[in-house]
Amino acid sequence: MLPRLWPAVLSLGWIILAMAAAEALMAGVSLAADDGLVGAFATGALITALCGGGAVLTTKGRRFEMNFRDAVIFTVAAWFVMPVFAAIPLLQQPVALDPVDALFEMVSAITTTGSTVLAGLDEMPASLLLWRSTLQWFGGFGIIGLAIVILPFLKIGGMQLFRLESSDSGDKYLPRVQTIARAVGQIYLGLTVACFATYVLLGMTPFDALNHAFTTVCTGGFSTHDASFGYFERPALRWAAIVFMIGGAVPFLAYLRIVRRGGLRERVESQVIVFVAVAFVAVVIVALWLSFSGRYEIGEAITEAAFNTVSIITTTGYASADYSAWGPFAALLFFIFMFLGGCTGSTTGGIKILRYQIMAATIFQHLRQTIYPHIVQPVRYGGHAIGNEQVASVGVFVFLYFATFAVVAIIFAITGLDTMTAFSAAGAAVGNIGPGLGPVVGPAGTYASLDDFQKLVFAFSMVLGRLEILSVMVLLAPSFYR
Amino acid sequence: MLPRLWPAVLSLGWIILAMAAAEALMAGVSLAADDGLVGAFATGALITALCGGGAVLTTKGRRFEMNFRDAVIFTVAAWFVMPVFAAIPLLQQPVALDPVDALFEMVSAITTTGSTVLAGLDEMPASLLLWRSTLQWFGGFGIIGLAIVILPFLKIGGMQLFRLESSDSGDKYLPRVQTIARAVGQIYLGLTVACFATYVLLGMTPFDALNHAFTTVCTGGFSTHDASFGYFERPALRWAAIVFMIGGAVPFLAYLRIVRRGGLRERVESQVIVFVAVAFVAVVIVALWLSFSGRYEIGEAITEAAFNTVSIITTTGYASADYSAWGPFAALLFFIFMFLGGCTGSTTGGIKILRYQIMAATIFQHLRQTIYPHIVQPVRYGGHAIGNEQVASVGVFVFLYFATFAVVAIIFAITGLDTMTAFSAAGAAVGNIGPGLGPVVGPAGTYASLDDFQKLVFAFSMVLGRLEILSVMVLLAPSFYR
Repeated sequence: MLPRLWPAVLSLGWIILAMAAAEALMAGVSLAADDGLVGAFATGALITALCGGGAVLTTKGRRFEMNFRDAVIFTVAAWFVMPVFAAIPLLQQPVALDPVDALFEMVSAITTTGSTVLAGLDEMPASLLLWRSTLQWFGGFGIIGLAIVILPFLKIGGMQLFRLESSDSGDKYLPRVQTIARAVGQIYLGLTVACFATYVLLGMTPFDALNHAFTTVCTGGFSTHDASFGYFERPALRWAAIVFMIGGAVPFLAYLRIVRRGGLRERVESQVIVFVAVAFVAVVIVALWLSFSGRYEIGEAITEAAFNTVSIITTTGYASADYSAWGPFAALLFFIFMFLGGCTGSTTGGIKILRYQIMAATIFQHLRQTIYPHIVQPVRYGGHAIGNEQVASVGVFVFLYFATFAVVAIIFAITGLDTMTAFSAAGAAVGNIGPGLGPVVGPAGTYASLDDFQKLVFAFSMVLGRLEILSVMVLLAPSFYR
Repeated sequence: MLPRLWPAVLSLGWIILAMAAAEALMAGVSLAADDGLVGAFATGALITALCGGGAVLTTKGRRFEMNFRDAVIFTVAAWFVMPVFAAIPLLQQPVALDPVDALFEMVSAITTTGSTVLAGLDEMPASLLLWRSTLQWFGGFGIIGLAIVILPFLKIGGMQLFRLESSDSGDKYLPRVQTIARAVGQIYLGLTVACFATYVLLGMTPFDALNHAFTTVCTGGFSTHDASFGYFERPALRWAAIVFMIGGAVPFLAYLRIVRRGGLRERVESQVIVFVAVAFVAVVIVALWLSFSGRYEIGEAITEAAFNTVSIITTTGYASADYSAWGPFAALLFFIFMFLGGCTGSTTGGIKILRYQIMAATIFQHLRQTIYPHIVQPVRYGGHAIGNEQVASVGVFVFLYFATFAVVAIIFAITGLDTMTAFSAAGAAVGNIGPGLGPVVGPAGTYASLDDFQKLVFAFSMVLGRLEILSVMVLLAPSFYR
């Protein structure tokens, strides 16, 4: 029996058409800015529209419907397909990137990674910069949706803890999902507007503020300057970015619960508290190191430590300084930070704090069980008992995450990158962070010098990390389609 | 309430006395060999005997008894205490190592790691060489006992799969344990005698054959030559070592089952088959690399690949060549091999094949469950269903293993070792392998150049790895003593 793919194709067709509309809009932006990309975006819009329309037409005569399986196929396929269409304008004059670079840049955008192959951002056409930032912003929204709608039902990495009321994975969940998506979308938009206003008030140009608001809230990290956030020298701007990066790293459903039902205290999840605590401790350690090693005086040390540490822990990837040149101890810390991540249901990548909490709880429960074999106590998270199945799914995720990281690092090492570059690039790709460590792929470098094969591996790793690995593995299982 | 420690102290006293007897015996060996260590070993024997006797006397008037908790305290404490007493002869003239070096060497012996700080082994006094090998051999036997008696009841890393019939962790299990220990001891001794005879027949001197038989069967890897097994040029000797290293990497209870009940087929565990298959594939890959990269012609490539690969996978740590100079791809492979290990219930260190099998089975079961949510299938190992508790204990172990490795690697890196040295040394310590990679700690180097702090971290890591981490953690929990 052939698998039923048409609902996914139909939905893909519609979002490809939406992408075409966005490209057309960018053609308008380019026209207004007179930056020479009108033709490139218009061509992109045309080709994209033809492909999207074609996809929709293949399903002609069908009434739209979508069950859970269709939704999984659609979601995973979208993350692979959308960067291709987003890349079309970049292939043409005057940008004329080669196809691998264009794909790399667009995958990095849509997965909210923020790694770039472009240097000379300060002189880039405005519409191109806005295109990168806008895609990253939409990617961030997509990932919140994935975390709310798809991952809990696929039981990936303990996400079944966050299922919406009904455990029905059949045909009826869509209306409820739409309601929630709209509410979360409003919060996401509200946060972005607040970030934009704050940046403007603190002195950014409206254009910089718009781009950086887009890429802060989605914890993406694309900038409009080669110096990244280091271009903006006011400490107040750094602290504003810190606040909004953390804002993007918090579960969006938690905002929803606070907005809807009021009462902050009992609606703040355990993972949010632990996340903030971990970030705080990390910042203190880095600040002490920066201060004692004589690199900055204490006030500046706190700002620089807070900004760069929060940037990496939230997997944003802005840099205000080349922290990989802060000595081996700092490099090591930042490497470890790459594996933390924010909260589940946020825009951040990485393993995420919740999984560490559950791993730690499991280890402690295991030790208790060993010492008192006759007292049966379940693993607990935030005061609630967690089933073995959830614990196992967290363990499987963490194992697969590190295994994926290791394989990617090994591929980079075999193909000629030095150890630090290979390991940090792998961590940056799978964790959707952005910069790695060291002179090549660190905050002061770009990924331009990687060869095509390495760039493709990097791009694939970004998508794999973004989809929390297992969504892709599920789709590769032939039995999924039966 | 004070914890009951005296049964552990009493047992410790007795094995310290046994150590004193062994040192006295070595004084005799030294006398026969006229190698100048009579005084050192005699002094060692005297001090050790006084301490052991003192420990026994503190429990005067008590009748020997030992419950499971006592056995855990005794076992873990023994691995920390015994190297101290074994080191006493090395502190004195003419060897006169400094205390940290002596402790490092003896921990490396008793944990069957095989890392050394000594160069010039070929000229070392015979009794010193024999002392190292003998300790390693006893350490190997100790570890089989640990795996059969302690780990299954502590439920460490899925070892509860290998509980002896009764699940009683109370006071009655000791007689049964003694019977099994005796039977396993006979098999261990038999294997060692067979290895010794084979080595002599193939041309080793009886002294070399004895030392290498001791350190092959326990997968320890101490040699009597700086060139390690590379000193012996006959390929037949390498293949003999390969056979006996694999012999030491197989669960000793499986031998027992074969000997007692006959019938090979149904008594060979799934992990043995997978272990041999993994080793075979690893050897083929290395041999192809050696051959195609033009380093050896094909026959020699197979022998060198098989010897060094099996040596690392079984965590023995002999080398017949400096495989860390076989190019980056080979270095990477050998680094990965460090994390494999042999079978549970053998003398090998590392994560061990069984845990990978259970992790893989869990991942597949998890994917199946995601695709068919209504079909409940347990994780399986060797045709049997495995409970969630076992799966979780494997996950916890693997996570803690990698976490321990990472922490140790980070400490080494912070304290100034280069990345490759730091990572491979950490892997070698926690996995009880022996040599790391690179010019400093690789097969051609020694650990002598590490500083004292690094050596102590290394020594502690060896013990932690040997006791599968969790045994030590259990003992650190205050509630264990209540």
